[in-house]
Amino acid sequence: MSDALNRRIVLAARPNGKPTPDDFRLEEVPIPSPAEGQVLLGIRYLSLDPYMRGRMSAARSYAKPVELGAVMEGGTVGRVLATRHPDFAVGDIVLSHSGWQTHAVADGAALRKLDPDAAPVSTALGVLGMPGFTAYAGLLTIGKPKSGETVVVAAASGPVGSAVGQIARIHGARAVGIAGGADKCAFVRDLGFDDAIDHRAPDFAARLATACPNGIDVYFENVGGAVWDAVFPLLNEFARIPVCGLIAQYNATGDFPGPDRLPVVMRDVLSKSLTLRGFIQREFADQRPAFYRDMAGWIASGRLRYREDIVRGLENAPEAFIGLLEGRNFGKLVIEVSDN
Amino acid sequence: MSDALNRRIVLAARPNGKPTPDDFRLEEVPIPSPAEGQVLLGIRYLSLDPYMRGRMSAARSYAKPVELGAVMEGGTVGRVLATRHPDFAVGDIVLSHSGWQTHAVADGAALRKLDPDAAPVSTALGVLGMPGFTAYAGLLTIGKPKSGETVVVAAASGPVGSAVGQIARIHGARAVGIAGGADKCAFVRDLGFDDAIDHRAPDFAARLATACPNGIDVYFENVGGAVWDAVFPLLNEFARIPVCGLIAQYNATGDFPGPDRLPVVMRDVLSKSLTLRGFIQREFADQRPAFYRDMAGWIASGRLRYREDIVRGLENAPEAFIGLLEGRNFGKLVIEVSDN
Repeated sequence: MSDALNRRIVLAARPNGKPTPDDFRLEEVPIPSPAEGQVLLGIRYLSLDPYMRGRMSAARSYAKPVELGAVMEGGTVGRVLATRHPDFAVGDIVLSHSGWQTHAVADGAALRKLDPDAAPVSTALGVLGMPGFTAYAGLLTIGKPKSGETVVVAAASGPVGSAVGQIARIHGARAVGIAGGADKCAFVRDLGFDDAIDHRAPDFAARLATACPNGIDVYFENVGGAVWDAVFPLLNEFARIPVCGLIAQYNATGDFPGPDRLPVVMRDVLSKSLTLRGFIQREFADQRPAFYRDMAGWIASGRLRYREDIVRGLENAPEAFIGLLEGRNFGKLVIEVSDN
Repeated sequence: MSDALNRRIVLAARPNGKPTPDDFRLEEVPIPSPAEGQVLLGIRYLSLDPYMRGRMSAARSYAKPVELGAVMEGGTVGRVLATRHPDFAVGDIVLSHSGWQTHAVADGAALRKLDPDAAPVSTALGVLGMPGFTAYAGLLTIGKPKSGETVVVAAASGPVGSAVGQIARIHGARAVGIAGGADKCAFVRDLGFDDAIDHRAPDFAARLATACPNGIDVYFENVGGAVWDAVFPLLNEFARIPVCGLIAQYNATGDFPGPDRLPVVMRDVLSKSLTLRGFIQREFADQRPAFYRDMAGWIASGRLRYREDIVRGLENAPEAFIGLLEGRNFGKLVIEVSDN
């Protein structure tokens, strides 16, 4: 083993609004030993994702919060360093949910073995992992894009948004991406989106309307906030809105000032027969085999591309995560924890 | 013919907020003559329904507004007084959409013949008509109540709400109705609802929570407003919310004061995987044969009951409609226009 100790980042305090570095604490503890049926993992990659902001708060949500003093939760790719499970050998590379740390023991039953020859193993945290599956299942099961329809997605250079737009195009729809800044918009266009709109532009709403001359049939909601306000008037009758994230409001505190937008939204839900549907990807677990097959095929044929934003060093995870909530990453944000 | 003239009520002015009697005008005009393929109808019953408030406003909605000076829209039951259509004979009783008037010509193709021996013909405007079908299609197609789940509906003594709760029970769900006042609540309980809650009670929200010890799986939304606020925190994971009406906000003018409830609603849409789905019953037209068969069967067997609130005289329609928007009716509101 390359380290004598397990380095880990725990939740030091619950953030009030935006997380700060003081909400995290780096600790060093002894490396644990695997029990029967377990393996010891050296973590290579840690995924940073917006949902983690929710886990830092005590408020009820779809998953339990991280306890104060506990290791921050997160998806990881690791190498088996020691094994007490017959299906795993030292050297195997596996997907686990080991959190923000350099070492972890895990039950063999909770692991998925990765093939380093099939794809870079970090993609199991992105395009071939939870974010890619969120895009795939939410778009196809709830959004149901039809040929010729218009699909809009924000954070379009990120791992979910970039997959949403490309899968929409594969299904014959027009894809319009929203991203922050000229570089990200250029990347989104380069991915094959029909258009990309910079949400920082002062005339963002007007540009979005111009980019959607036939209105919007599917809005894949992963940000909320001002993007929602620009999208909302453009929604067509029978539009579908899969809701998988609201990153713009994750750091909000207290009441939201008026006017109250809910009655107007409900009026259009009624008058336009809109569908708003929240989801967490695990609901669609039975679609994972189809996802792996389709996505791997699209990547292999070059129909679907992705971008990773890899930050080296576990100690940089808090700063990178704070930046993620502000859109400072460019592509799927992954921490390269070690080269164990 | 019993009248020498067609008496009709036209839209005299667009209401600002609550409609007033001055927004309507009673006119007398010559009775029209049917062209080839048409019939002349003497209207017996006129349906009054909340959606008509939308037609009085100029704002875009799912249907065009009534023009100023035009006859108010509405579903009607009439008797054929003269016919130039081979499928209809004088004396036939038909369902039409002839609006607020005593006489009308109509294309034969737009009519549905009613059997006065099968059910009172006024029910074609209520439990066996558009309101009943709204309940049936919205509850079963969007709400999808499962055995043991809890279904909540407001305006539960009205034509839509009373059918929603009873169909939910027929499908094995627990039904909780919300209504205004002790008499309506007693009626709702008498229909077989598991509980009925008076939304005028000062502790309404607490009573609703007590009546739904396992939370709410389906909320059939037809009112909005304060009822929504009481229902919302009780919604379970994967709850379905068919949205077919928002009567509490139809008379609203201008912006709604804060706080902004939308971010909180979106947060729960996401964290609870909620489905919000607006609909207009005509979307589900292919289910009408199943509806007629099921509903007639349930009525015949006594499993589903209904109540009509019949007001005599076309001239009383404006006052009755204004009262409908305030919940003053008790059961399906129908104007008995004449005994033509």
